[in-house]
Amino acid sequence: MKKASVTTKKAPKVKKPLTTQKVRNTAKAKKWVYFFGNGKAEGKGDMKELLGGKGAGLAEMTNLGIPVPAGFTITTEACNAFFTSGKKHPPQMWDQVLENLKKVEKSMGMRFGDPVNPLLVSVRSGAKFSMPGMMDTVLNLGLTPATLQGIITRTNNERFGYDAYRRFITMFGTIVMGIDRNKFEHVIEKMKKAKGIELDTDLDAGDLKIVSEEFKSIYKNETGSDFPNDPLRQLELAINAVFGSWFGNRAAKYRKLNGIADDLGTACNIQSMVFGNIGETSGTGVGFTRDPSTGEKKFFAECLINAQGEDVVAGIRTPLHIEELAKKMPKAYADLKKIYQKLEKHYKDMLDIEFTVQEGTLYMLQTRVGKRTAAAALKIATDMVKEKLIDKKTALLRIDPAQIDQLLHPMIDPNSNLKVVCKGLPASPGAAVGRVVFNAEDAEHAAGLNEKVILVRTETSPEDIGGMAAAQGILTARGGMTSHAAVVGRGMGKCCVVGCSAIDINENEKYFTINGSITVREGDAVTLNGTTGEVMLGEAQLVSSVLKGDFQVIMKWADEARKLGVRANADTPHDAKVAREFGAQGIGLCRTEHMFFEADRIRAVREMILSDTREERERALAKILPMQKKDFIGIFREMAGLPVTIRLLDPPLHEFLPHTDEDIQELAREMNVSADRLRAKNKALHEFNPMLGHRGCRLGVTYPEIYEMQVRAIMEAACELAQQKVKVFPEIMIPLVGHVNELKAMRDITVKVADEVKAKYKSKTAYAVGTMIELPRACITSDEIAPYADFYSFGTNDLTQTAYGLSRDDAGRFLPYYIDVKVLAEDPFMQLDQTGVGALMQMAVDKGRKVKKDMKLGICGEHGGDPSSVEFCHRLGLDYVSCSPYRIPIARLAAAQAVLRKAGKDLSKSTV
Amino acid sequence: MKKASVTTKKAPKVKKPLTTQKVRNTAKAKKWVYFFGNGKAEGKGDMKELLGGKGAGLAEMTNLGIPVPAGFTITTEACNAFFTSGKKHPPQMWDQVLENLKKVEKSMGMRFGDPVNPLLVSVRSGAKFSMPGMMDTVLNLGLTPATLQGIITRTNNERFGYDAYRRFITMFGTIVMGIDRNKFEHVIEKMKKAKGIELDTDLDAGDLKIVSEEFKSIYKNETGSDFPNDPLRQLELAINAVFGSWFGNRAAKYRKLNGIADDLGTACNIQSMVFGNIGETSGTGVGFTRDPSTGEKKFFAECLINAQGEDVVAGIRTPLHIEELAKKMPKAYADLKKIYQKLEKHYKDMLDIEFTVQEGTLYMLQTRVGKRTAAAALKIATDMVKEKLIDKKTALLRIDPAQIDQLLHPMIDPNSNLKVVCKGLPASPGAAVGRVVFNAEDAEHAAGLNEKVILVRTETSPEDIGGMAAAQGILTARGGMTSHAAVVGRGMGKCCVVGCSAIDINENEKYFTINGSITVREGDAVTLNGTTGEVMLGEAQLVSSVLKGDFQVIMKWADEARKLGVRANADTPHDAKVAREFGAQGIGLCRTEHMFFEADRIRAVREMILSDTREERERALAKILPMQKKDFIGIFREMAGLPVTIRLLDPPLHEFLPHTDEDIQELAREMNVSADRLRAKNKALHEFNPMLGHRGCRLGVTYPEIYEMQVRAIMEAACELAQQKVKVFPEIMIPLVGHVNELKAMRDITVKVADEVKAKYKSKTAYAVGTMIELPRACITSDEIAPYADFYSFGTNDLTQTAYGLSRDDAGRFLPYYIDVKVLAEDPFMQLDQTGVGALMQMAVDKGRKVKKDMKLGICGEHGGDPSSVEFCHRLGLDYVSCSPYRIPIARLAAAQAVLRKAGKDLSKSTV
Repeated sequence: MKKASVTTKKAPKVKKPLTTQKVRNTAKAKKWVYFFGNGKAEGKGDMKELLGGKGAGLAEMTNLGIPVPAGFTITTEACNAFFTSGKKHPPQMWDQVLENLKKVEKSMGMRFGDPVNPLLVSVRSGAKFSMPGMMDTVLNLGLTPATLQGIITRTNNERFGYDAYRRFITMFGTIVMGIDRNKFEHVIEKMKKAKGIELDTDLDAGDLKIVSEEFKSIYKNETGSDFPNDPLRQLELAINAVFGSWFGNRAAKYRKLNGIADDLGTACNIQSMVFGNIGETSGTGVGFTRDPSTGEKKFFAECLINAQGEDVVAGIRTPLHIEELAKKMPKAYADLKKIYQKLEKHYKDMLDIEFTVQEGTLYMLQTRVGKRTAAAALKIATDMVKEKLIDKKTALLRIDPAQIDQLLHPMIDPNSNLKVVCKGLPASPGAAVGRVVFNAEDAEHAAGLNEKVILVRTETSPEDIGGMAAAQGILTARGGMTSHAAVVGRGMGKCCVVGCSAIDINENEKYFTINGSITVREGDAVTLNGTTGEVMLGEAQLVSSVLKGDFQVIMKWADEARKLGVRANADTPHDAKVAREFGAQGIGLCRTEHMFFEADRIRAVREMILSDTREERERALAKILPMQKKDFIGIFREMAGLPVTIRLLDPPLHEFLPHTDEDIQELAREMNVSADRLRAKNKALHEFNPMLGHRGCRLGVTYPEIYEMQVRAIMEAACELAQQKVKVFPEIMIPLVGHVNELKAMRDITVKVADEVKAKYKSKTAYAVGTMIELPRACITSDEIAPYADFYSFGTNDLTQTAYGLSRDDAGRFLPYYIDVKVLAEDPFMQLDQTGVGALMQMAVDKGRKVKKDMKLGICGEHGGDPSSVEFCHRLGLDYVSCSPYRIPIARLAAAQAVLRKAGKDLSKSTV
Repeated sequence: MKKASVTTKKAPKVKKPLTTQKVRNTAKAKKWVYFFGNGKAEGKGDMKELLGGKGAGLAEMTNLGIPVPAGFTITTEACNAFFTSGKKHPPQMWDQVLENLKKVEKSMGMRFGDPVNPLLVSVRSGAKFSMPGMMDTVLNLGLTPATLQGIITRTNNERFGYDAYRRFITMFGTIVMGIDRNKFEHVIEKMKKAKGIELDTDLDAGDLKIVSEEFKSIYKNETGSDFPNDPLRQLELAINAVFGSWFGNRAAKYRKLNGIADDLGTACNIQSMVFGNIGETSGTGVGFTRDPSTGEKKFFAECLINAQGEDVVAGIRTPLHIEELAKKMPKAYADLKKIYQKLEKHYKDMLDIEFTVQEGTLYMLQTRVGKRTAAAALKIATDMVKEKLIDKKTALLRIDPAQIDQLLHPMIDPNSNLKVVCKGLPASPGAAVGRVVFNAEDAEHAAGLNEKVILVRTETSPEDIGGMAAAQGILTARGGMTSHAAVVGRGMGKCCVVGCSAIDINENEKYFTINGSITVREGDAVTLNGTTGEVMLGEAQLVSSVLKGDFQVIMKWADEARKLGVRANADTPHDAKVAREFGAQGIGLCRTEHMFFEADRIRAVREMILSDTREERERALAKILPMQKKDFIGIFREMAGLPVTIRLLDPPLHEFLPHTDEDIQELAREMNVSADRLRAKNKALHEFNPMLGHRGCRLGVTYPEIYEMQVRAIMEAACELAQQKVKVFPEIMIPLVGHVNELKAMRDITVKVADEVKAKYKSKTAYAVGTMIELPRACITSDEIAPYADFYSFGTNDLTQTAYGLSRDDAGRFLPYYIDVKVLAEDPFMQLDQTGVGALMQMAVDKGRKVKKDMKLGICGEHGGDPSSVEFCHRLGLDYVSCSPYRIPIARLAAAQAVLRKAGKDLSKSTV
């Protein structure tokens, strides 16, 4: 190999930063630069603070003896010094850069700026935390008219050379100098138009040569200087740009919003480029150490001979099976095999790798933990335990609980290629295919004919329950992740996409438009992806996942590890059955209002609402009693031996009345009252803010007969089953308590009726009376409330609404924007706001347990199925979480992970 | 006087409680009974715990040497012993009762049960705290067929005797034995019908004799026993009933709801009856030591000769001027004069007294602090300071701040006797008279013609502002004490009655009905009393109060004493002027949305809302800018030298659009857009829970141009005035912050625009940027928010709504019931909920000041004008309270009282 001397030859000509020149001869300077290459790195994997994540990773790989193209990392301290000294390099930094560049040249056998065998480098920023808004990668730095010729000669490919060159000018111009990318792209477009071609790849070497020259003119116009032909000048500018990007607007704003300290600084990585397209002894490839789709233990990789990584990405050539590499370059293949096995052993995980062979020598370009399907995640985790590579604890922590969801719902065939026409919020996972209908009645009618339909509504209301159950999936134009459709959809395990604001529904004429252009009419087929929120026209093929052995193994391990109980939110015997199959240890929330909507009883409910006196109401309630009792018998039976928490009536009464004129007329005829009377009742019951209105225990206080009927139904059901030797543990829950006196009064009523029923049945059936903690005031006065509650269940949906002053039904208008611009890091209805709502919960727990040490505590808000929220509940010391049946496996795994992680560490996918 | 021996003679015949007989001879027993009489009492005024409030008061008066009819008090300890021993008298209690009864006989020169000169007694319960639900008074106990003859002989009035007898049987039967009062009244009604008379007083002695006999039959039927003819048996039963009432349902429930301990027990007071109707040397009277209406220092009393107190109450005879007593019974009058002066000196307050002269001897029956008008309260307090009877501190504490309100508004002439036809909530005090109109437009039209109108609405909305200003008073059928009408009414100092649920309004046909019976049509005259919530038909005479010298004196003393600043909630230059006259030290809340509604700008506001792009919005906002600026110039000028806190736009945008079809059509024509477009916009902006919707800083985050315009208007106004040497201190307030990032973003915008304006004017005008703390989450995360806020102002209206999960606009349906049945002691929108909302405020203060020690803190919710809430704010360490202009004097006084009261003591009119 030739000895490189480019740097020493050219360096004196470079205009060095003044500071460097001034102090270059002082005594021992600080170490600003860390080398990696030749199997040894000055840094290590745990030096992220100093070298950034990327620099530390490159050092770690090098130290493992894995061939990594040589390079060096300029430290975050250098970046900070750069800023504190008015954007000047700290003393001797540049000298150290030059020294290390020499080491790289030596390691690679190439020279920076050499016209025959030129070293090219990549320049990348890399802070301790991955941070959008900072500088991207500049590749091929070191290309000049002189070195370009060397590249062309070495690759024997003029087009490749000019393509690399024009790409470098673009990257340097836009990323380092901040020129508008459109200016460059415009030239390409013009060129293609002039030549009558469509693809960039159709441009030949001559075209690209012209383009490169035009690019350099743009550069001059925009920056006032010639494009630098001095590689060291290129490097200096790129390094300064990396440092400068730390205080760029976007990065600074990102740090501010995410609470990242300004003085962390970013490191800068300079690494030699290697090329897989220098000839038949060169090549490139990507792969996974195991099958990322199934998890099977076999090397899963592809390669291209005489090609660059970009070619794979661009899809110009079809990659070959990795065996081709074994045939053509047995030595490189043998090395690769050793390396990937070594890496997997070192990282103890399935890895995603990228490599390049340059003239027979293998280089690893990237190694990171590989993405995988849920099924693969389960198989790899359990296999690696069998292989004694990891222990059960590590296996459990390896699986993303949210991913488990994939396994429990049908999915769209990955080979399906329907076009996505719009996107809403992924409210309830899975996929659904069906014909569009616009109301619940049509959905039910179609279901009766065994037709598959998708129910499309502006938003759903409790009256739509029947139609939602009958439909394959639900699509709404309004509402957020905890809107009615979302909550009910998840509860049913039914695919649901909500808040799809691109669609505009005309219910009367039964069609909707998408972004004002596409029109979808009743009967047209659509496909929903509830996992991504995507909406497609036409029918996709669906594939259903099976809960395989690995799943059961992981769940068993999770159950061994976790301390939190996991219950289900379930309102019907069917839901209860599903929940039990998924591993529910009881019901944490049985909402009684859903029962009120069923066709056979809504009439009696409306009769009750239209009553003017307590006596009339009691007569109507007497009709509902046997039906509610039957519901409870069904649920108790499914949950035999396990506790069932039943919430007494919660929604405001007006939710049970019809609201459209047509429905009112119909009900009036049916009930033999005047439509005007119904309208008057609607008007009288109208509320400006129903969320904060006459609901929850406020109904029980003003109409005690309603709660009395419900308690009677619960206790009669429990006592009758107890006589049949079915083990029943009813827990009666009073909703929306804000003041202890509300609970006192409702507890008195409950105990009175329950004891009456027990006496009637001569039964000893035990029951508990507790409350939902869902108002800030209840948290604050938890010490007053606790003496009257046998248990608390946190209703974090309403607690989030009230603590934030945020209506979940209305937040769709600004919450997505808040999250886009990072005013909020997460949707607080999806992931528990630990700082605010969590602090209220902590207060309620502390004050409640101070008064009643062993109080049973649970959560039944939607957060009960969110992994980070489950971990928080574990830390809070709750006894159980309760969630939709389909989320139970997620909660079981998350609860186990909560135990396994160090106390106090936050699982939340924090943005930092 | 004859020596009485009745008790010793009769006592052995009485069947004594077993316990007494068993232990009567044991050694020294506990003291269960405390005597008072003959100028000496065994108890004292501070022994309320043992003797109850009433017993301690009687003892105090006796010890002052004031002639009080003799009697004795059985202690609360005896009551507790009665219960712990299974409803038996404690050992020797009965013996002590008999001993003390002898003392009373001796003192009064009468004998219990004596047929010639019988002693009659009253029996009353009396616990430490006054408690509804406990036993009422039984008078004339000791009447039997035998003693009745003695009374008749002594009074020479058979009718009086039988009347007293039948009243005693009724009281004993109902209060002691629990017989339904209707059973007795039915007999009287039957008798009157038979005789064809209407008044009880028309019944003669013979009639009452028959009635008495029938009453005794009822007693026997209901209780199974004869009415007791043994006075000691009567006494024993009455004492047991007093003790028993302590654990009666109503009293127990009351204690439970009000947190009064069950083991306090009640005392029982037995006091001799005196009669003012034994002849011409007897009489009775009532009076005040000073004029309760004006406060003038002169004895203000009336009397009746040969009459009983009941006669005065019943209005049978016209009372005489007290001088008649001086003429007829100079000795008694001289005694009375000495006594009332002595009492006033002792209690150092104006007193209300009741007395009876029995055969020349004066007895004081009651002395308590006298009720007075606000004007009298001020005069008495300042006079007593001049008389050196009390100090300024005491004078300030004597005045009920809420009463001050009377002085600031016109009142209904006390001689007016219009009938009250229904009652709503007293939302804004004062009185108003006018013709009924049903919409704002009609109100404004009438005002233009100088006609006085009352605006009657189901509820008001911001569109009604003009009409509200034009009307004399406002009456709404819906809404609570902090509904729109109430808040705006109070702000304007305008009489307002809200939530009058008895009225049913037909806006189209322009009439309302009251309880379905009375119909009031447009143009009919009504009178509103905003201080009581009463509604009357017809026109009452109004009298207006003048802020007299005494008022100014008290306010001056208050200002010297208080530490809290007092600011005003004022939105216009006019309000600001009024506020300053009332003593405001700045504006604590200037709501900018009210300005948006004014006729000349609502059009531009609507144009802004209907805009689809930022550019269109900015064009519309540019039209509003000069108008807002003019508003601020006016307000700043009125408040020259004082701080003005301006809240940026708060309500959701849909509040500014018309909602009725007619209004929409009109606006569509006016703005030259289609009505459908307006309807679509309304639909798009519709919110399920606007209180928790797209409002407050959420508007500023999503439409920064709105806040930018407002900040520009504020700062241009400030800078222009500063150039004119007007001192301006603008404080810009960001509403509804729930997360620090919201404040950060809005602060950035504010500072950017404000500094731009300052630069343009080359002005050094200082400004502050702060936030309203009105969401629980803001309180909890106050330490995160504080670094970005120069000040906090507590918005306790919204904080109460969110902490309680209670919509103030909807709470009217159940909150009054909650307060009726004592689920809540107070309306939390009127009186700050210190336990819940207060704890959140405490958290915000502590966490905020921990980060920023000297942060300026205020409150601008409606509670800023409520005395107990003001005291709480003082204890919290706030810097100022801000309230409606007309409440400023109340706040000034309450703030002074807060300082004067002992720290930690709660001013709230607690129900215990």
